[in-house]
Amino acid sequence: MKLYDAEWAPSPRRVRIFLAEKGLEIERQVLDLRAGEQLSDPYLRVNPRGAVPALELDDGEVLCESAAICRYLEALHPKPSLFGTSAIEVGRIESWTRRVESDGYTAAVYVFRNCLPVFSGRGEPGSWPSIPQIPELATRGGIMWRAFTDALDERLGASEWLAGDQYSFADITALVTIDFARAAKLEIGEEQANIRRWHDAASARPSASA
Amino acid sequence: MKLYDAEWAPSPRRVRIFLAEKGLEIERQVLDLRAGEQLSDPYLRVNPRGAVPALELDDGEVLCESAAICRYLEALHPKPSLFGTSAIEVGRIESWTRRVESDGYTAAVYVFRNCLPVFSGRGEPGSWPSIPQIPELATRGGIMWRAFTDALDERLGASEWLAGDQYSFADITALVTIDFARAAKLEIGEEQANIRRWHDAASARPSASA
Repeated sequence: MKLYDAEWAPSPRRVRIFLAEKGLEIERQVLDLRAGEQLSDPYLRVNPRGAVPALELDDGEVLCESAAICRYLEALHPKPSLFGTSAIEVGRIESWTRRVESDGYTAAVYVFRNCLPVFSGRGEPGSWPSIPQIPELATRGGIMWRAFTDALDERLGASEWLAGDQYSFADITALVTIDFARAAKLEIGEEQANIRRWHDAASARPSASA
Repeated sequence: MKLYDAEWAPSPRRVRIFLAEKGLEIERQVLDLRAGEQLSDPYLRVNPRGAVPALELDDGEVLCESAAICRYLEALHPKPSLFGTSAIEVGRIESWTRRVESDGYTAAVYVFRNCLPVFSGRGEPGSWPSIPQIPELATRGGIMWRAFTDALDERLGASEWLAGDQYSFADITALVTIDFARAAKLEIGEEQANIRRWHDAASARPSASA
């Protein structure tokens, strides 16, 4: 199989951290996002959605969406589990993953995509028809980010890792989100000490440099 | 366990359809969304996020997020599987579920939340600080809906169900999204015959009335 990957972008990094935690290596083809390679004809034949990552299987089938790629790999290589083994672990990990995505990651994308001139006409990620930027979404993203990180800080005051006492896909998702959000000038507050403790621990894992 | 549920809203319906497909019955408490019961103090003590559904377990723990509730229930009651059993099924179902959510469901929420006066100051679902509506998001939602349904129609021209030849969580997600989108005046085009064929089949299952 082959992973279509890209430097810096959050979703490809989510898969790379996942692979590193699993101890898996996969052939990679790195796309140049700054040059728009994800929207070029050759790549749109791989993934018409124009998004990275994508996983091309040996029979030619292509799996898109970072969470789907990771779940596929977890099914092939169950240990160490990053999506949980008991029912309650499965539920908690999915719940926190979704919370981080819908509240935190969405906030960061709102800001990131709707301010910078480089994304003019590309207000949503992927190969859409022209989508005008909406500067008010950056304001909305800022409101959401503050509320999200306050809730995250409260949770991490009560739990070592986001979904319990084991590092999981929810932590990968949160790490990628927080590091990506910096590019949108969304930061963790000095007083959000629980997030800082957790972020230091997650960042110290070898997988974080993937 | 007890499910905090609500009439009409898409995420609670996703769980109800899932339960019906599994043949499971759970005690339910139905919140009155029009009266704002999901943002009342008693419910915010159950789910501070102010969103339905939520699943309260017998030990008092509360699982939020419809996808997490369904995955928890699938882990407890694996058959019939709605998230897939083989690795490739797992990957395909998650991929299409995510695609429907990020492209179709997001488009519908953009329109639904940013036009109607009833959602003034509540531009995002849940218990956020005041979030002003952004009418331009309705325009964006319309652009996205058309592109999303074109891609969906193409997919359903090649596959009986969204993720393959078995009905899955991806179909539940798409059915709930399309029916919800009507409230935002986002429709399926007359010419999108593959979606119509699939929508008729999904709607004819007894679970669709859940």
